[in-house]
Amino acid sequence: MQSIAHYHQVVTQYFEALALEKQPQNLYDPIQYILSLGGKRIRPVLTLMAAEVFGADCREALPAAVAVEVFHNFSLVHDDIMDDAPLRRGNQTVHEKWDINTAILSGDAMLILAYQYFEQYEPQTFRDLAKLFSKTALEVCEGQQWDVDFETRTDVTEAEYLKMIEYKTAVLVGAAMKMGGIVAQTSEENCSLIYDFGRSLGIAFQLQDDYLDAFGDPETFGKQVGGDIIENKKTFLYLKALELGSADDKEILKEWFEAQPDDPAQKIADIKAVFVASGADAATKKAIEEYTLSAFALLEEMDIAEDKKQMLRAFGENLMKRSV
Amino acid sequence: MQSIAHYHQVVTQYFEALALEKQPQNLYDPIQYILSLGGKRIRPVLTLMAAEVFGADCREALPAAVAVEVFHNFSLVHDDIMDDAPLRRGNQTVHEKWDINTAILSGDAMLILAYQYFEQYEPQTFRDLAKLFSKTALEVCEGQQWDVDFETRTDVTEAEYLKMIEYKTAVLVGAAMKMGGIVAQTSEENCSLIYDFGRSLGIAFQLQDDYLDAFGDPETFGKQVGGDIIENKKTFLYLKALELGSADDKEILKEWFEAQPDDPAQKIADIKAVFVASGADAATKKAIEEYTLSAFALLEEMDIAEDKKQMLRAFGENLMKRSV
Repeated sequence: MQSIAHYHQVVTQYFEALALEKQPQNLYDPIQYILSLGGKRIRPVLTLMAAEVFGADCREALPAAVAVEVFHNFSLVHDDIMDDAPLRRGNQTVHEKWDINTAILSGDAMLILAYQYFEQYEPQTFRDLAKLFSKTALEVCEGQQWDVDFETRTDVTEAEYLKMIEYKTAVLVGAAMKMGGIVAQTSEENCSLIYDFGRSLGIAFQLQDDYLDAFGDPETFGKQVGGDIIENKKTFLYLKALELGSADDKEILKEWFEAQPDDPAQKIADIKAVFVASGADAATKKAIEEYTLSAFALLEEMDIAEDKKQMLRAFGENLMKRSV
Repeated sequence: MQSIAHYHQVVTQYFEALALEKQPQNLYDPIQYILSLGGKRIRPVLTLMAAEVFGADCREALPAAVAVEVFHNFSLVHDDIMDDAPLRRGNQTVHEKWDINTAILSGDAMLILAYQYFEQYEPQTFRDLAKLFSKTALEVCEGQQWDVDFETRTDVTEAEYLKMIEYKTAVLVGAAMKMGGIVAQTSEENCSLIYDFGRSLGIAFQLQDDYLDAFGDPETFGKQVGGDIIENKKTFLYLKALELGSADDKEILKEWFEAQPDDPAQKIADIKAVFVASGADAATKKAIEEYTLSAFALLEEMDIAEDKKQMLRAFGENLMKRSV
C-alpha cells in the first residue's frame, strides 16, 4: 500500500507532463493553464487510493483519476464565470486572463476531454466509468443551479442545503473513489460502499468549510475569515442559527443579511456571536462528526483487509483535522 | 425503406414527448425550451436514415439520433452567447430569455445528457458511439475557436477556411450518419464511407450557405441577404474574390470590409459585383458541385443495394437544390 504523498506525486507528475499543445492554441492554452495551477488534487488521489485499496495497481486508475480532475477543473472554469471570480488558486481565472467566450469554449472542451480519458479502458469498464461520470456530472450541474437559486430564496431548508452540497461537491468525491473500485473490478457491494464513504466525507468536508469560514484561525485559514458572512451566504451555520436561535438572534441575522457595510468587521463579529449563542456552531460541529462517523461505519461492511480500512480511516481523520 | 418525412416525424414526435420536467427547474426549463423550438432536425434524420440504409430498424438509432440533436442544440446555446445573438429559430435565445449564467449551465447539462443517450446501447456499441461523439464534439469546439480566431485575422487561407467549416459543421453531419452505421453494426468500411459522404455533403452545404447569403432569393431565403457582408465575414466567396480578383476588386473589398455603414445597401451591391466580376461566385458554385459529386462518388464504393444508394443520392440532391 502506497502513501497519499505517493499518489499525489503520481498525479502531479502526470499533469506536469501533460502536453496540450494542440491547435487551435486559443482553445488549448487556457486548459493547459488551469490544469497547471495545481490545487490539492484530492479527487484524483482518492481514485488512485481506492484502486489500490481494492487490489489494483494505482497506475491503472490514472486515466480515470485524470478524467475526474479535468472535470473538476472544467466546473471551476465555468463556475468562476458565473461567480465573476477574479482569482483561482491565487492566479487569474480563465475568463479574466482571456475572456468569457474563451472560458466557455475551453471549459466545454475540457468536459469532452474528460470523457476521452475513459477510452483507455475496455468496453465494459469504459461504459461503467462513463455512466457513473455522466450521472455525477449532471448532479454537479444541478447542485450548482440550486446554489444559484438559493441566493435569491429566503426559505431554504436544512434538507435542501444538504442536498445542494451533496450534489455540488460530495457526489464527485464519492464517484472519484468508486471509479477506483470499478477499475480494480471489485464487487458492486464494495463499489457502492466506497461511493457512500466518499459522499459522506464530502458532505462533512463541505460543512467543515462552512464552519472554518466563520471560526477558522485567520493565521492558517487560506481564505478571508468571514467571507461567507460578507457575501450573505446561507450556509449550514446560518440555517442552524435560524432554526435554533432566539427571536433576537433571528432579528440580528435578518438585519445583517440585508446589509452590505463597507467595513464588515462589526457584521462578522455580531453574526459569529449569534452562531455561538444559538448553538449553531456546536450543531455544525456535531453534523460534521456525524457524517464523518457514518463514513467510517461503512468501512466495517467493506470486504477489504484491516490495514486498508485503517488507511481510509486515517485519510478521513486527516481531512477532518484540517484547519485550512 | 422509409421516406425522409417519416424519419422527421419519428424525431419530432420524440422531442414533442420529451418530458424534461426534472428539478431544478431553472436548469431544465431552458433545455426543454431550446429543444422544443424545432429547427430542421437534419442531423437526427440522417442518423435514422443511415441506420436503415445499413439494414437496421430506424427506431434502433433513435437514442443516438437524439444525442446528436441535443449536442447540436448545446453548441447553439453556447455559440449564441459568444455571438451575442438575440434570436434563434425566430425566438429569443436562451441567454436572452434567461441570462448568460443559465445558458452556460444548461448548455453544460445538455452536453452531458447527450452522452447519457448512448447508455441505451450494449457496451461495445456504447463505446464506439461515445468515442466517435467525443472526437467529433472536440472538433466542433476547435472549429468554433478557429471561426472566432479568423474574425481578427487578415491572412486566412482557403485551406484554413475549409478546415474550419469542416470542423465546425461538417464532421457532425458525418458522425450523425456514421452513428446510424454503428447502430446497424455494418462494416467498418461502410461506416468510414458514410462518414466521408456526410462530411463532404456537410462542407458543400456550408459553402452553399455562404453562396446563398449573398446570392439567395430575398423572397425565399430565410435570413437577411447580405448578412455575412454586413458582418465582414471572411466567407469562401470573400477568400475566392481576394484570390481571383483584380487589384481594383481587392481594393474595393478591403475598403468595404473596414467600413460599417448605417445603410449597407451600397456595400452589399458593390461587394456582390466584385464576387461576380472576380469569378468568385462561379468558383464557389464549382466547389459546391465538387464536394457534392465527391460525396456521390463514395456511394459507388458502398456495400449496399442500389435503391439505398439512390435514396442517399436523392437526399444529397434535394439538400443542394435548396434556395433557403
